[in-house]
Amino acid sequence: MTNTLFSPPYYAVIFTSVRSEYDENYHEVSLAMLELAKQQHGFLGVDSARSEIGITVSYWRDEAAIRAWKVNADHWIAQKKGREIWYDFYSVRVAKVEREYLFEKDKIL
Amino acid sequence: MTNTLFSPPYYAVIFTSVRSEYDENYHEVSLAMLELAKQQHGFLGVDSARSEIGITVSYWRDEAAIRAWKVNADHWIAQKKGREIWYDFYSVRVAKVEREYLFEKDKIL
Repeated sequence: MTNTLFSPPYYAVIFTSVRSEYDENYHEVSLAMLELAKQQHGFLGVDSARSEIGITVSYWRDEAAIRAWKVNADHWIAQKKGREIWYDFYSVRVAKVEREYLFEKDKIL
Repeated sequence: MTNTLFSPPYYAVIFTSVRSEYDENYHEVSLAMLELAKQQHGFLGVDSARSEIGITVSYWRDEAAIRAWKVNADHWIAQKKGREIWYDFYSVRVAKVEREYLFEKDKIL
């Protein structure tokens, strides 16, 4: 949970997905990709939730960091498996965060 | 599920939250706010998922639409109850969507 502020401007990649019924290796690869993302230059944080659909929002310092992550070799293989096996549908939106607010109970930020 | 493209540039409001243990009226008000948001000028769509945390991403044509929604009287009351009762933590990020991609199985978009 990204309960910190990252100082705009920075970038968010909004990944929304509907899973298929096949989950061969899905969880192992998801975790591996998360660990790999965290090691990338310019990675700031990630939030993820899944109920009927899944939403993962990852945060990056700049566009160069997003582009480098997109073409990372291991990530590229995972993206290919995502299209072939794991997802019936997904969307990717790249957005520039202009402002942000945090609320924490019993705490004035 | 927003399985359509909205033609960038447009805006995304990324709302990430941790619920408190109190859910008095939470679901009724959530649904009412969703219906109210859909009626707002400039509203494009919304995606929502909740597991350990909740993520709701709403999409808007421009910043003016977001500002109008933020100060909507009924929504303002719901925001106040959110801080007082429903949420231990939340963050709001306003971001300008610059590009988007969709993948749908067995369909070339």
